This record gives sequence, C-alpha cells and structure tokens, in this order.
Amino acid sequence: MQQARYQGTGRISVVDVPEQPPAAGEVQIDVAYTGICGTDLHILHGAMDHRVAVPAVIGHEMSGTVARLGEGVYGWAVGAPVTVLPVLPCDDCPTCRAGHGNVCPHLTFIGIDSAGSMQQRWNVPARALIGLPDGLDLAHGALAEPTAVAVHDVRRSGLVGGEHAVVVGGGPVGLLIAVVARHTGARVLVLEPSTHRRATADRLGFTTIDPARGSTAEAVRDWSGGHGAAVAFEVSGAAAGVNTAVEALAPRGRLVMVAIHPTPRNVDLHRFFWRELTMLGARLYGQDDMQTAVELVASGQIPATDLITRIDPLRQVDDAFAALASGTRMMKILLDCGGQR
Amino acid sequence: MQQARYQGTGRISVVDVPEQPPAAGEVQIDVAYTGICGTDLHILHGAMDHRVAVPAVIGHEMSGTVARLGEGVYGWAVGAPVTVLPVLPCDDCPTCRAGHGNVCPHLTFIGIDSAGSMQQRWNVPARALIGLPDGLDLAHGALAEPTAVAVHDVRRSGLVGGEHAVVVGGGPVGLLIAVVARHTGARVLVLEPSTHRRATADRLGFTTIDPARGSTAEAVRDWSGGHGAAVAFEVSGAAAGVNTAVEALAPRGRLVMVAIHPTPRNVDLHRFFWRELTMLGARLYGQDDMQTAVELVASGQIPATDLITRIDPLRQVDDAFAALASGTRMMKILLDCGGQR
Repeated sequence: MQQARYQGTGRISVVDVPEQPPAAGEVQIDVAYTGICGTDLHILHGAMDHRVAVPAVIGHEMSGTVARLGEGVYGWAVGAPVTVLPVLPCDDCPTCRAGHGNVCPHLTFIGIDSAGSMQQRWNVPARALIGLPDGLDLAHGALAEPTAVAVHDVRRSGLVGGEHAVVVGGGPVGLLIAVVARHTGARVLVLEPSTHRRATADRLGFTTIDPARGSTAEAVRDWSGGHGAAVAFEVSGAAAGVNTAVEALAPRGRLVMVAIHPTPRNVDLHRFFWRELTMLGARLYGQDDMQTAVELVASGQIPATDLITRIDPLRQVDDAFAALASGTRMMKILLDCGGQR
Repeated sequence: MQQARYQGTGRISVVDVPEQPPAAGEVQIDVAYTGICGTDLHILHGAMDHRVAVPAVIGHEMSGTVARLGEGVYGWAVGAPVTVLPVLPCDDCPTCRAGHGNVCPHLTFIGIDSAGSMQQRWNVPARALIGLPDGLDLAHGALAEPTAVAVHDVRRSGLVGGEHAVVVGGGPVGLLIAVVARHTGARVLVLEPSTHRRATADRLGFTTIDPARGSTAEAVRDWSGGHGAAVAFEVSGAAAGVNTAVEALAPRGRLVMVAIHPTPRNVDLHRFFWRELTMLGARLYGQDDMQTAVELVASGQIPATDLITRIDPLRQVDDAFAALASGTRMMKILLDCGGQR
C-alpha cells in the first residue's frame, strides 16, 4: 500500500509498504481523504522534530471506512464511514478527571506522536473512531476534525446569539470559526489582509475588513453600534493580530487565543484590567465538540465546497504541501488516499 | 474645617476651608478615617493629572458617620456609621445594563473625578452610602473599600474551596486577596520579595516564597502536589510578576490581572493556548462586593491590626504619603480626619 513519509526537514514522499493488520484493540481504516493542516506544514518544515520520530507518517484530518477489526473490537461494521478523534488523553490525571482531556499534560496525538492518516490503510485504537452518517461525501467528512477545532473555540468563548464576534484571520480555521459562530446566532466580522481570502469570506456572507486599511478598532466599533465586540478570535498568529483583537473588544469582552504564537507577545494588560477583558486559550477539542462538528458537516452547515480548494492524489503529496505553503490562495487541500468510498 | 489638597505634582497640604452644606440628594459625612491607596500615591506623583482637576481633594477608602442629610434624602440616621461606594456608573449603557457597572465606560469615581474624603466633612450622593454595623471600630471600617477590591478579584477568579491559589505580590491588596481566598476555602501561597511583607504574610498564616530565590514555578508545583495552581492573582505590577503568575498555573488555570501595568507586557501566549489558561482583568467592585467586604471586616475575618501600619492625623498628610512612598515596610496608612466616632 501507499504511504507518505516525512523524511526530515522539507522532505516528504510516497513509498510502497506492506500492509500491517490491526493489533488487538485497533481498527483498520481504508483512508479516503486526509486534509493537510498548518501543523502538518510545521512538521514538514522541521519545526516539530523534537516530537516527531523521523521517518514519520503524519495527517489527522481524515475520513474513511472501516476495513478490519482487531482482536477484542466489536460493534463497528466493516464498510462504515468514519473519522478519527486523534486526541488520546491519559484519563487519569487531575486535568482529565476535571473533564479537560484536551489539555492533558500526558496526551498523545495520533498523527504526531504516532502514525497518521497519510496512507491507504491506517490502524488506530478503536476508542478513537467516530462514526459518520451514511451517504456523506467523504471529502466533506474530512472537514470534521478542523470543524471540531472551531466548535471548541466558539464554545470556549461562551458566544451567544445576538452578540458581535470578530475573527482575526480568514484562513481555513478562521472561516470555520466564523461559520460556527454565525450558526450560534452571532453577527460575525472577518478581518483578513489577503484579498483572495476576503473574497471567500465575502462569498460566504460575512462582513469583511482589510486590517491594513485604517483603524480596525474604529471600524469594529461602528459595525457593533459603538459598543465593541463581545468576542474576538485571534487566529492570525501575528503580533499585530493580538492587538487588533484586544482593541476590538467591548468592556467584559472575551478573546479566544486560537493561533499558536511561538514567541511571547506584547499584550496591553492595562486594557484587560480597565475593561475587565478575558483571554481564553483554546486547544484541540473533546468528543462532544467532534460530535457537534460531524452534525454540522452532515447537515450542510459547513460550506465544504468553498473551503476545499483542491484534492490531490496521495502520490503528489509533495506538490500538495508546496501549494499549501505557497500563500493565501489555498484554503484546504485534501489528499485522496485511495481508500474505498 | 480641615481639608487636604493635592496642589500639583508632589505637593499636598492641609488648608482650612468653610464647610459646605450637602446639596439636594447628598449626605454630609463626618469623616473618621481615610486610607491612602496606591491610586492616591499615583495622583500625588502627577501620574493622573489628565484626570484630576488641581487643586483636588482625593481619598476614597474611608469610614465616618452621617452628619447631615441634604434635601430629598431620607432614611439615614444622623450618627450612623457608614462607608462609601465611590463607583458611580451611568446605569444606562450596554455595559451597565449587562450588570457590569464597575467597567462602565462613563463611570465617575468619587475621590478622583470628584472631591474625596481627605477632609473633615464630605458631601457625597446618598446612593453611594453603605452602612457599617454599630460598634465596628471605624479604623477597621476604612478597610471595607480595599477589601471590596479583594472580594471582587476572588469572585472574578471563580475560586472554590480546596483549590490552590497563588498571590503574586504581598502588599495590602495582595494580602487582602490572600485572606479572602483563604476564607473561600482555598489553599493560598503568597509570592513576595520583601522580607518585611513576607513576615506579615507569615504571621497571617500563609505559605510564602521569595520569588528571587530559585524557580517559583517548581516551588509552586511542589506545593500544589505536582499539578500547579488553579488560580493566580497578579498584584505586583511588575513584568516578571506576569511570567511568574502564568508559569504557576495548572492546565485550565485562571490568572486574575489585578495590578495596573502601564505598558504592554510580554505574555507567553503559547502557554495560554497549550494549557487553555484564562486571563481575567479585574477592576473595582460592585455593591455586592462591598456588602460582602463589610461583612468580612465586621466579623473580624480581615486582620485589620496587622494591615494598618499606622494612623496619622490629617494635618500630617504629606508625611503619611512620604512614608507610604518610602518602601515596603508600610502596609496601610490611615489618616485620622477628625470626624466623630
């Protein structure tokens, strides 16, 4: 079977390897599609070599069908469409016992800490399986995982219908957050410097602003009737994005820190004090977030065709990564991993 | 009557002025004691001249007795012991309507935006009066306002019994937060570099650590059974204090930003993301916080004699400010304003 292997900084290629049967407690999946996410790109660029054992099979945004059940696994029908919840908390530490397995200090993440889905057949622990509805386009099903991120981020914000929410950064995660926030009943504004990404957000019906043009704080204030936003999602990862998000917020506003900021950022703590702002870190998701995400994808709430820029065959994995790294014209690129659908 | 007047940067002195009767809707208070807080010191140093109209009567941590009622004021007994809630929100904006008058963008603060209590007789809007129990030592009653700050900060943290809380900075506000947090049932650790302030915290029964000695993150981890603190209060106002607070927190920990940081600070946002930390700005207090504070002071929960370093007569106001500015040996200094008690 075909398997994409990260071979060290900048190198990824497809090799033919013998198929391994699922171990006890595992399920083998015929992988239909795997999306490439920002973390996969980070891994390819060598930024996570401290964590990834080279050569590594990566990938965790996926869909497929059940191919075989390992010993001691029951209940799943061969051929059933599935996705995977790649977060495996320890279930035993104080953080897990408090119900926050997504930030368990001991968690392992399938596709980073163990083999991922950029291969034709993939063995995963049965506990990680999440069923998808029959008849769902599996290309759309591969969006369940990034949608779960967005569901978690919006839940963390406590956003309620009628509130104004600003999304700083209109890439795939930002737009998914915007979609989920709007589904919650909020009014949503997307701040994004790329013309191409703004056009996608416009097409999806969002109000958009180019943060490079004039004062975003003023624009947000006008848009929100003079009050400021109740919630801001920082998805840009840029230092300027943090300031933009802080300045957008009304008194008692909530800032959800979605993006990864690799170095400390200057934050206007006086504004946090003065307006009693709240900043909430948000990472990964839980099973409930994933279930909600599957429902949103299955019911057509997630604009999959607008978000999936292209689908490449697995053997062109290096081209697909290069295209994603090339700029802002790409939203989501899926790899067709050849599994049955 | 005597009145202390801030006369411009660094200058404060007592003058004799004619007493003014209370206007309609006001109550005149015989001021017993006024505490000097960090904000008053800031004003004296000229840091708030953009907001304070010189010459200004400042002061807002106080106790006294009702002297006279202005026209249209009913119900208050002359001689009744009182303190004042100096926060006057507009009651009309979206923030006020949401119940967060303490961060109303239009609020006025008595003692900054209008005349304060560093005088023998003080006229305030009747709606600002808060009754104190008969028989309460009015020197202790002057601690109700800073205690309300602490009550609000602890409420904002969502601290519950059994949790571990770290207070970064063991000055008067830090120790009041520590006391209120302990009253909530939490285990409390105070981080404070001053030997003198640590000694006060020790005497009050708190675990203390000198942050200048070795890794506080490690010390907090050990103290909290390897997990980290559920809550940290940043009361130091120092850049290093922010890092210390962030590093002290367990996954899902909450950082309450109490101190005023006049310039932006470097914040490890990756840690906020990775551990899903929350940062909550906390400013002033509401009427409910003040009522709780009065109960805590009246029931002896607040260690008033440990916190009040000395009481100076109003006419020595300049000495009192100089003593407070001189270093960390002073906790709370009260001015005896000469009112009946």
